[in-house]
Amino acid sequence: MSARFISLEGGEGVGKSTQARRLADALRTRGLDVLLTREPGGSPGAEAIRSLLLEGDANRWSPGAEALLFAAARADHVTRTIDPALSEGQWVICDRFLDSSRAYQGMAGGVGDAAIQNLHQIGSDGRLPDRTLVLALTDTDAAARADARDAGCPDRIGGRASDFHAEVAQAFRDFARDDPERIRLVDASGSEGEVTERLLAALADLLP
Amino acid sequence: MSARFISLEGGEGVGKSTQARRLADALRTRGLDVLLTREPGGSPGAEAIRSLLLEGDANRWSPGAEALLFAAARADHVTRTIDPALSEGQWVICDRFLDSSRAYQGMAGGVGDAAIQNLHQIGSDGRLPDRTLVLALTDTDAAARADARDAGCPDRIGGRASDFHAEVAQAFRDFARDDPERIRLVDASGSEGEVTERLLAALADLLP
Ligand SMILES: Nc1ncnc2c1ncn2[C@@H]1O[C@H](COP(=O)(O)OP(=O)(O)O)[C@@H](O)[C@H]1O
Ligand SMILES: Nc1ncnc2c1ncn2[C@@H]1O[C@H](COP(=O)(O)OP(=O)(O)O)[C@@H](O)[C@H]1O
Ligand SMILES: [Mg+2]
Ligand SMILES: [Mg+2]
Repeated sequence: MSARFISLEGGEGVGKSTQARRLADALRTRGLDVLLTREPGGSPGAEAIRSLLLEGDANRWSPGAEALLFAAARADHVTRTIDPALSEGQWVICDRFLDSSRAYQGMAGGVGDAAIQNLHQIGSDGRLPDRTLVLALTDTDAAARADARDAGCPDRIGGRASDFHAEVAQAFRDFARDDPERIRLVDASGSEGEVTERLLAALADLLP
Repeated sequence: MSARFISLEGGEGVGKSTQARRLADALRTRGLDVLLTREPGGSPGAEAIRSLLLEGDANRWSPGAEALLFAAARADHVTRTIDPALSEGQWVICDRFLDSSRAYQGMAGGVGDAAIQNLHQIGSDGRLPDRTLVLALTDTDAAARADARDAGCPDRIGGRASDFHAEVAQAFRDFARDDPERIRLVDASGSEGEVTERLLAALADLLP
């Protein structure tokens, strides 16, 4: 069975990075060769762009400039890291991908979904994950997990107002509703192990 | 008479930076308030992106990623520097702008003109100069001027093969043919003073 490209999505603090690691381990245990990567970043060029995106003032970039920078980082990540890994038969687990740009810049940032899809077409030939797992948690629970982790020091984007983050969470729910084949909402409450089991269930049809 | 936005365009070594300075001086002599700026760069965010674009290997970025980075830098430059200056009544002389992306990434780089225009719409609301002056010189003369200046050490993009630069020069000629109201070809041969006189003539209808 061929290698698959899986993205993990959701707002700040829902457990994406925790679950990306756990999912990579679970797939390795099943004998699969897995590349764990993340956005923004995941290739040398994209990591250089990452620091422009996550450092500095909350309003350092206009929403349009921010969308262009994310798309540039993603283009580099796809070309240099993701596509080569898939060609070599590695499964790719990616902590955030296109749908984060659609939610943060496209919907909450006002750039629009058509523009974000357009940028992705130009930079990355429109490449989509085989499955996108959106971790869903109440806004209160996600904020509590993120606060506990960041100890009051979120990054440029994580530090935005709570209604921005509520719009992001709503956007992810809408994406799952509009493309149920690719995008699955997964309950992110409960223990880490419980969430990993739910993620594996949402991948069952793809697993060998 | 309202402030105008003028861009200077053309391949490496045709004299854009030299003439941008001379043109700014000539307009100041006529009592105009002038902002001289350049791309990539011209605002703090865009200057940070500039170093990603001009340093490193010739193939550091895919053509699509490069186009996205230029568009991001331009979006920042327009929002933070060009639009505020125009609103305050300053004339803006910009050393390279959108048409460089159309020629280098769009035509010579293969990204396509529609994609470049699209990125410009998303990042900079499609903002165009009131007049674009393309400095035209034979490829041999331009290469000789650039070599004399760089002493064998061109930047990432200037160092590309000569047929890349020939495609760039052809693209600028095509743009001037397709949009003769905005884009004017100006003979860049002869002395610096002669070229400046030709540029002023190509702006005559806009000058107070
Ligand atoms: N199931 C869970 N229950 C409680 N805390 C969790 C759970 N999953 C993750 N966390 C913690 O919540 C915080 C945010 O998790 P993280 O994986 O960094 O989220 P994200 O990458 O989505 O922002 C971290 O401190 C993490 O240890
Ligand atoms: N009219 C001219 N005649 C001869 N040399 C020139 C003339 N204009 C500019 N130069 C020289 O040619 C080189 C390239 O000019 P520059 O303005 O840096 O070009 P560009 O910015 O278009 O790459 C510089 O060394 C400059 O001093
Ligand atoms: Mg994370
Ligand atoms: Mg120059």
